[in-house]
Amino acid sequence: MHSLDAIFKPRSIAIIGATTRKGSIGREILRNLFDYEFNGKIFPVNPRYENIHSVKAYPTVLSIPDAVDLAVIIVPKEHVMQAVEDCGRKGVKGLVIISAGFREVGGEGIKREEAIVAAIRKHGMRLIGPNCMGVIAAIPDVQMNATFSPAAPSLGNLAMMSQSGALGVAILLAAQKLNLGMSYFASVGNKADVSAPDLLEYWENDPHTDVIALYLESFGEPQRFFELSKRISKKKPIVVVKSGTSAAGARAASSHTGAMASLEVAVEALLQQAGVVRVSTIEEMIDVVAGFARAPVPRGNRVCIVTNAGGPGIMAADNVEAQGLVTAELSPKTQEAMRRYLPPEASVRNPVDMVAGAGPDEYEKILDLALADDGVDLAIAIFVPPLMIEPIEVMRRITRVGRAYDKPVLSVLMAEERYYEMIPREIPDAVPFYKFPEAAANVAAQMNRHREWRAVPAGKVRTFKADAKRARAIIDAKIEVGGGYLAPSDAYDVLDAFGFPVCKHRTVATDGDIAAAAKATGYPVVLKVVGEGIVHKSDIGGVVVGIDSRDELLAARKEMEKKLRAAGAWDAVTGFLVQEMASAGKEVILGVVRDPRLGPLLMFGMGGKYVEILRDVVFRVMPVTDIDAAEMVHRIKSYPLLEGVRGDVPVDIDFIVECIQRLAHLVTTIDGIEELDMNPVMVHPERAHCRVLDARIRVRAAKASI
Amino acid sequence: MHSLDAIFKPRSIAIIGATTRKGSIGREILRNLFDYEFNGKIFPVNPRYENIHSVKAYPTVLSIPDAVDLAVIIVPKEHVMQAVEDCGRKGVKGLVIISAGFREVGGEGIKREEAIVAAIRKHGMRLIGPNCMGVIAAIPDVQMNATFSPAAPSLGNLAMMSQSGALGVAILLAAQKLNLGMSYFASVGNKADVSAPDLLEYWENDPHTDVIALYLESFGEPQRFFELSKRISKKKPIVVVKSGTSAAGARAASSHTGAMASLEVAVEALLQQAGVVRVSTIEEMIDVVAGFARAPVPRGNRVCIVTNAGGPGIMAADNVEAQGLVTAELSPKTQEAMRRYLPPEASVRNPVDMVAGAGPDEYEKILDLALADDGVDLAIAIFVPPLMIEPIEVMRRITRVGRAYDKPVLSVLMAEERYYEMIPREIPDAVPFYKFPEAAANVAAQMNRHREWRAVPAGKVRTFKADAKRARAIIDAKIEVGGGYLAPSDAYDVLDAFGFPVCKHRTVATDGDIAAAAKATGYPVVLKVVGEGIVHKSDIGGVVVGIDSRDELLAARKEMEKKLRAAGAWDAVTGFLVQEMASAGKEVILGVVRDPRLGPLLMFGMGGKYVEILRDVVFRVMPVTDIDAAEMVHRIKSYPLLEGVRGDVPVDIDFIVECIQRLAHLVTTIDGIEELDMNPVMVHPERAHCRVLDARIRVRAAKASI
Repeated sequence: MHSLDAIFKPRSIAIIGATTRKGSIGREILRNLFDYEFNGKIFPVNPRYENIHSVKAYPTVLSIPDAVDLAVIIVPKEHVMQAVEDCGRKGVKGLVIISAGFREVGGEGIKREEAIVAAIRKHGMRLIGPNCMGVIAAIPDVQMNATFSPAAPSLGNLAMMSQSGALGVAILLAAQKLNLGMSYFASVGNKADVSAPDLLEYWENDPHTDVIALYLESFGEPQRFFELSKRISKKKPIVVVKSGTSAAGARAASSHTGAMASLEVAVEALLQQAGVVRVSTIEEMIDVVAGFARAPVPRGNRVCIVTNAGGPGIMAADNVEAQGLVTAELSPKTQEAMRRYLPPEASVRNPVDMVAGAGPDEYEKILDLALADDGVDLAIAIFVPPLMIEPIEVMRRITRVGRAYDKPVLSVLMAEERYYEMIPREIPDAVPFYKFPEAAANVAAQMNRHREWRAVPAGKVRTFKADAKRARAIIDAKIEVGGGYLAPSDAYDVLDAFGFPVCKHRTVATDGDIAAAAKATGYPVVLKVVGEGIVHKSDIGGVVVGIDSRDELLAARKEMEKKLRAAGAWDAVTGFLVQEMASAGKEVILGVVRDPRLGPLLMFGMGGKYVEILRDVVFRVMPVTDIDAAEMVHRIKSYPLLEGVRGDVPVDIDFIVECIQRLAHLVTTIDGIEELDMNPVMVHPERAHCRVLDARIRVRAAKASI
Repeated sequence: MHSLDAIFKPRSIAIIGATTRKGSIGREILRNLFDYEFNGKIFPVNPRYENIHSVKAYPTVLSIPDAVDLAVIIVPKEHVMQAVEDCGRKGVKGLVIISAGFREVGGEGIKREEAIVAAIRKHGMRLIGPNCMGVIAAIPDVQMNATFSPAAPSLGNLAMMSQSGALGVAILLAAQKLNLGMSYFASVGNKADVSAPDLLEYWENDPHTDVIALYLESFGEPQRFFELSKRISKKKPIVVVKSGTSAAGARAASSHTGAMASLEVAVEALLQQAGVVRVSTIEEMIDVVAGFARAPVPRGNRVCIVTNAGGPGIMAADNVEAQGLVTAELSPKTQEAMRRYLPPEASVRNPVDMVAGAGPDEYEKILDLALADDGVDLAIAIFVPPLMIEPIEVMRRITRVGRAYDKPVLSVLMAEERYYEMIPREIPDAVPFYKFPEAAANVAAQMNRHREWRAVPAGKVRTFKADAKRARAIIDAKIEVGGGYLAPSDAYDVLDAFGFPVCKHRTVATDGDIAAAAKATGYPVVLKVVGEGIVHKSDIGGVVVGIDSRDELLAARKEMEKKLRAAGAWDAVTGFLVQEMASAGKEVILGVVRDPRLGPLLMFGMGGKYVEILRDVVFRVMPVTDIDAAEMVHRIKSYPLLEGVRGDVPVDIDFIVECIQRLAHLVTTIDGIEELDMNPVMVHPERAHCRVLDARIRVRAAKASI
């Protein structure tokens, strides 16, 4: 038995704080439980009543003679702890705390919440809340609506979680209107115990649940969330609204990678990599889950639009193409068959416009022909009721054809409100229906993106031969002295230890023999200034490239000192770096920044001086598989530049993909790296010429990560 | 009197094709006219009836004893022409033809429509339709609903046009639900006569109309549409859904500019430049027009969010920031005043979370404080009804405060459907209300974009001293010989005639003396192959840069011939171009492509070999003012590169802005240019070093533009 069964499959529930006062939460929850016909025993608990809602009331949970699986607690915040303790003593295993006044109010509230968490751990209880609006289990054996929501779902195949009670109510209202059935609903509030990963795990193999929807403000445990959702998404679509990504603002932005890694970027990377269907609004969430809950996932991206009105057909086609789907090319045979069935004014090319006279028979026949066409993966049927044609009958026929094929059919009904209310009643198994073609096109696109993600193989995490000991020694030494930026040669050494092709280089003190260093690396060389406080060296004249001789080198050094003195930066200079000059190629950037919540974020993109302006980069969270690494390279907008356009020879893409995996290996092997930039990495058609031209590594100060 | 008054302000209407058959269009229109209490006389026309709808019927319009201003024609397509002729003879000045079977069906239908247009021109009539669903004039003196729509708007300040009848019905249904009042509504169908520009002009100074909304599939006359909407947008917001931009597909793409100028790009440029508020879905259109119709335009972009629930507040803040608005910083005074009024759990920092207990008084007080803060330009008030608090009273108070300030207040009510239905009844002047915070945030963003556009001065179209005669002679000569690409030196001459700084250059025949040419331009030089069929010269080895001496030049020529022979391209070579080597700078592109419907499209962006991949370009339609030109330069993503980052000196931005205006001057002065690319134009901090490095001009074949 799963520990959450006490919450979602209780046989008996105590309502601690039940009352008879109309409109109070203590009454509404009780009434909802009775109205929803809970398939078990309900025990109201309130010392001030003999009976509530015609049922015997008990002064405390301890006075209930029967065993209690679940307690719903609604008493004022000061009394919650007592109720929790009573439940523990009673042997209650599941708690839903509706009461507010905990972590969300700060101060004393945080302490109150911590005490409750300690108590449930002690008693082996699981807890939803506090500060939530309750839970629903619509599954046949349970039929529990322990919320105070004015709307409750019918039984269906959608499990839903909302971190916000208010949005939870809004979602339930919208779902009710569409007759979008649910298996479970949970409003989790402060998530003191149960959070999204627990529910994902609970719903993963639940036979009643085919689709999962989450409204999240935070992830709970991001790594666990990631692993679970990546696994579950292969079987059940997970649709997520993730909010709360705006206010985070910019981080300390000393590295290029750090400057571009906002919380939104990190969240987007995590969700995309996990195969989660991310939607941006609650309305879109409802639209999309209705699609997944009531239609199969398409097997391709070719959409056929069938309509009785031109304008909506055009709107659908525009949005289908704008979203990266394809308007299907119907076979000549299909077109011919449609032509025989339709009046001459009709258009049998996609979008198929049957014109205004089309009734139930035409919808059934033409949609049947469209779905039978091998070139069609999904159909959108649009109906604008003309006078004299009955919308419900048309919708019924669309549903009948839709149910006969293993291809999704999305319908659009542009009609009076009352018809939307009739559909759920009249056609309980209706295909997903929308009010506007744009919404249907968007749902089709989300379904298709999910299909594409599912089709990608899982991939493997590669490791490489590396001198981890050497790298770790460098990093640990820096941690010892309080962290900060590694000296350039140390940064190169760390990378070299993990197999990156760093430029040949020598570090020389301010008064050292740079000419000897240049002789060792070989001309042409690059001269760079070294100094811990100097961040953007090239901006202040601290980098000279293409030095061909000793004389040029010494002149460059002299000029550099002059410039840095002028810029007031000379005092920070501790020496010079002389390094081999790599032959020209294409510049890319690889980087890592550690997010305090999500762990290391890997970045790849077009590199060079202007990387922050062009922002043609892509992020991924750990673990990064071979498939992820290849996808990162292909996903940047400038990818064609790497592949070679206008006569260019392609660079060694495999080398880049390998570098990304090496970097993932490095940051998961060596602890303590906060930020890392390799910018640029010069890439060439030939791997032997690829080089890391510059690198910076920032190490954390003490044991704890920032 | 305006010629459209016959349509929108008739004193008497003939319904030609009126019937008594339930559900038929001929009956529904008649019933709608009576139900809407048309403030004039209605004459049913149908030879088969004595009376229709208790009113005397006439066999033809000619037999009506009174004068007739407007005729609504519903007869089958074969009889429409006769009805139109009768109307002409009767002296009817306005026609609305509902009947279908004209241009939209092709073939005979086109001829039928052309005959009707000829007839209305002859009789001096104006026509809406054919193939439309009718017109509405809700203004008090008229009260005409001459549509067969099941929904009709109340009187309001919104004038609306739909090119699609089906979407027109959908819009009317949605508007009715929100009690979104209208002054006029027109479904224009095939637009044989009256189209969007006519209606814009008609509504421009209409005292009943404050906001205009259009659903467009095509522009009618794009140039007239552009000029009118640019002028009117300064006074009345014009909200547009423009569809039908997807299928157009790629054009013949021999120039960079042409390859990037899709119809969607052109349409977007036109609408943006005209200050039109473009929305992408019908739902968004309804949301946005409700905002403009019922709230003032904000004076800034700082938004205060007031809520009684955390989640929706976060959703609003996320979307506000994602849309480029700012979450306002409330003054300490405001925060203090709010703090005094709210419980300790409340948050008085924006988003202001009053927590679930907040009722009508809190909403009124806190919203008042927010709006009184000078740092707030717009407020979003979110209400999720808890138990025991009455939504309608809260909405009433929000409206009361909102109406007391000249700042927009958008409200979000997340409640049961019945409350949305109650608001229009209970609070006729309600502030705009939405179901989800995301929608309100989007409306706020659209209103703010409109404010920003209004604030930009109109700008002036500059002309320059130019040798138009010389340029025209070159173009005309090419037209004479059938058009196509100008020889490189001719293209340079055309640009030189309009004041562009082209590189010094010499054209030499295949066996000519290239060394003499190089001596004339001065070393270093660039050698380019010349030949009409050779499009991407550099891809096949037809360009060599950085030639420093005669020996290098001859070697380069030899090598070039070898490569081109190998590529099988040598036969197309007619000679060489030797040109001065410009000093390195930043590469930009300027171009023009002529759109068959929208005229010349001007393009500016980051240039060079990879322009089509990076696609960091912006388009504008004519006329391009000084303000437009400056805005084009600022709008590209890479603009910071031009301004100089990381120690770079800024390039001469004024030079680029001037070039854009010179190009606009060129293409509006000289007829016959189909495509023009200047790529790259090398720009420098100093204007004297800026150069056009390569240019191609394609000239049309005959008199008519493609």
